[in-house]
Amino acid sequence: MEITHQKRRYTNRVITLLTDFGYRDGFVGSMKGVILGINPGAQIVDISHEVQPQNIDEAGFILFSTYNHFPEGTIHVAVVDPGVGSPRKIIAVKTRNYIFLSPDNGLLKYIFFREKNCRVFEVTNRIFFLNRVSSTFHGRDIFAPVSAHLSLGTNINEIGKKTRNFIKPEIEKPSVEENRISGAIIHIDHFGNLITNISTNELRNFKRKNNTIINAGNIRIDGIKRSYSSVEENKPVALFSSSNLLEISINQGNAHKNLKLEVGDKIELTFE
Amino acid sequence: MEITHQKRRYTNRVITLLTDFGYRDGFVGSMKGVILGINPGAQIVDISHEVQPQNIDEAGFILFSTYNHFPEGTIHVAVVDPGVGSPRKIIAVKTRNYIFLSPDNGLLKYIFFREKNCRVFEVTNRIFFLNRVSSTFHGRDIFAPVSAHLSLGTNINEIGKKTRNFIKPEIEKPSVEENRISGAIIHIDHFGNLITNISTNELRNFKRKNNTIINAGNIRIDGIKRSYSSVEENKPVALFSSSNLLEISINQGNAHKNLKLEVGDKIELTFE
Amino acid sequence: MEITHQKRRYTNRVITLLTDFGYRDGFVGSMKGVILGINPGAQIVDISHEVQPQNIDEAGFILFSTYNHFPEGTIHVAVVDPGVGSPRKIIAVKTRNYIFLSPDNGLLKYIFFREKNCRVFEVTNRIFFLNRVSSTFHGRDIFAPVSAHLSLGTNINEIGKKTRNFIKPEIEKPSVEENRISGAIIHIDHFGNLITNISTNELRNFKRKNNTIINAGNIRIDGIKRSYSSVEENKPVALFSSSNLLEISINQGNAHKNLKLEVGDKIELTFE
Repeated sequence: MEITHQKRRYTNRVITLLTDFGYRDGFVGSMKGVILGINPGAQIVDISHEVQPQNIDEAGFILFSTYNHFPEGTIHVAVVDPGVGSPRKIIAVKTRNYIFLSPDNGLLKYIFFREKNCRVFEVTNRIFFLNRVSSTFHGRDIFAPVSAHLSLGTNINEIGKKTRNFIKPEIEKPSVEENRISGAIIHIDHFGNLITNISTNELRNFKRKNNTIINAGNIRIDGIKRSYSSVEENKPVALFSSSNLLEISINQGNAHKNLKLEVGDKIELTFE
Repeated sequence: MEITHQKRRYTNRVITLLTDFGYRDGFVGSMKGVILGINPGAQIVDISHEVQPQNIDEAGFILFSTYNHFPEGTIHVAVVDPGVGSPRKIIAVKTRNYIFLSPDNGLLKYIFFREKNCRVFEVTNRIFFLNRVSSTFHGRDIFAPVSAHLSLGTNINEIGKKTRNFIKPEIEKPSVEENRISGAIIHIDHFGNLITNISTNELRNFKRKNNTIINAGNIRIDGIKRSYSSVEENKPVALFSSSNLLEISINQGNAHKNLKLEVGDKIELTFE
Repeated sequence: MEITHQKRRYTNRVITLLTDFGYRDGFVGSMKGVILGINPGAQIVDISHEVQPQNIDEAGFILFSTYNHFPEGTIHVAVVDPGVGSPRKIIAVKTRNYIFLSPDNGLLKYIFFREKNCRVFEVTNRIFFLNRVSSTFHGRDIFAPVSAHLSLGTNINEIGKKTRNFIKPEIEKPSVEENRISGAIIHIDHFGNLITNISTNELRNFKRKNNTIINAGNIRIDGIKRSYSSVEENKPVALFSSSNLLEISINQGNAHKNLKLEVGDKIELTFE
């Protein structure tokens, strides 16, 4: 009875895919074919395949804003991999609830930042790879079959040895002064909303939040609101996004197009 | 025996997703993660996530042309939601074969128009929401978990109270005169086909359909044909679409680009 | 016991979809709805829906580069169908491991080329179609239900009669001379990589592969490398793609944009 239950749990496991492969070619389809050939019961979910080609930071942010809404045991596969075929490592990271598979290129920086206990393994055991590994498509030849074997219950330490030697970029945090927080735009979403690296944490110590002034480029916004519709249509608004990060938007409009702000641009909060 | 059967039916249920969230961010992935966390056996199908941002009418049409091809019991989740975070309602609508979840903003107008017995409930029971509901992403925090609970067999009247107070826009119907039908283009599809609001119903009473003249902009088309290939390549053709609506196309070409007609443009049929 | 196993195998079967329908309308969703209505356990995988409208060759290549990564028994449905509604046939093709469904328009040319024993059937048995077949959307009305019935175990010869009368275009093969191979670009992928029709087979008989010179347009590349990162960033590189075809790329860049080469452009290899 218990075995049956355990089997069900494993074979049903969710595998998410996040890549810069696009939807036009069959790249993502090939990965899914390989996974289903190994675990026919895997639940495969696309997170995104429209990461800008080779934009590791963008993939990292999308994963950060998504991963912890998946059920315990989910295997997150993130392949933005400009170094494919070079001697760069592939890592498997075990956190409390999830396993992450990614090239060792900093894509997982937000995971390392937010998750307390990350155990990192180097993916080296060729038993779990396709027989023939190309030098241009490890998504299909390594990531897909390894994730499928993990979803069937293969222990992460069978995949390769634990390592302390991996790339772990610093997160650029906002600077907090007595009366001022300085941050930057780190992501622009499909609606043109400008997501910053300023979270509710940074604001916790400021008492007069209602009198916050937000400055970004030529724009000045008064106060942090609760929802887009707290301001009139086509007016800019600052609020906390669904990932708890300060976001600049235009109610029913596109802040990116209208305010001409880009990823990396500075944003400053002052409290009056 | 019966219980088993019923269980299978429920846990296997199809949940469709239709949004303007795009494929680039992890918005849709987050919704799926939440659903699978509640019902690991849910069959999730994307209808579209490329609705133009905040274009409620477009979402309504896409849902209309799709929904009744799904198996009985399917839960259709449609989130184009410019009013997210405002006091706008969320409604659950029970028809003979389906349940629909949508913001109360008119998105379901074609469903109300076509389905005879719609029972409408206001979605209010926070037991079925995520613990923490953001003010910007109800797709993830309300729609996803509510749909998952419904797919597990939760009765719709546990979700909230029945209501008669909801937005039900009029469908703009074509005007039918003695020898003339006047309608409008209501959708342009991926191939550039121009879909109108003139259905086979309007034509039922006209006897000499073969001599129909279709006028739209500067274009005059003679007769309603059976298929694209009823005319030569690159020639315009009028026919009934797969949704039984009159459609203007160009055989192996793009009518939208070539004929310079847009959503809202008038179209007129006369019978000689 | 055996019956149970067989049943599981069938009801779980993978059905892949490859079309030019795009992701904006509900076309693909409708197909999935029809499939799940017939076989609720079908595993549906999207290969691509962003084939350029009516580009049969592009669809053929994407299918070629993808199909054999799927588990045995997979049913591949490929619908790029400019002749929909005309008297063109629909064919079902049985190979050793797979079944293919496609309009009879040459889309499967690479399958006929690579697979030794193709048995071709004309899809005619209306029992397996939707009751009402439109003249514009056979993807939903014929391909989807037929694939679902095949996935449930319906024998391919119940779908229609075996035929020898179908379209089988020649594959344009590279010309191989004593010291020279002349081929062409046949696909450009999402990253702008230029895929040619020159495979490892053509090179097998040339001894001094290391001194290969690749000429395409104004570009000259020395040698075939193992991976993108074998050259410096932003430099062109020739290598064998994940489909074993010679590919011209730019390390961490876009060869299509930078080298101004298109599908159909010639490429020449000489050996010094």
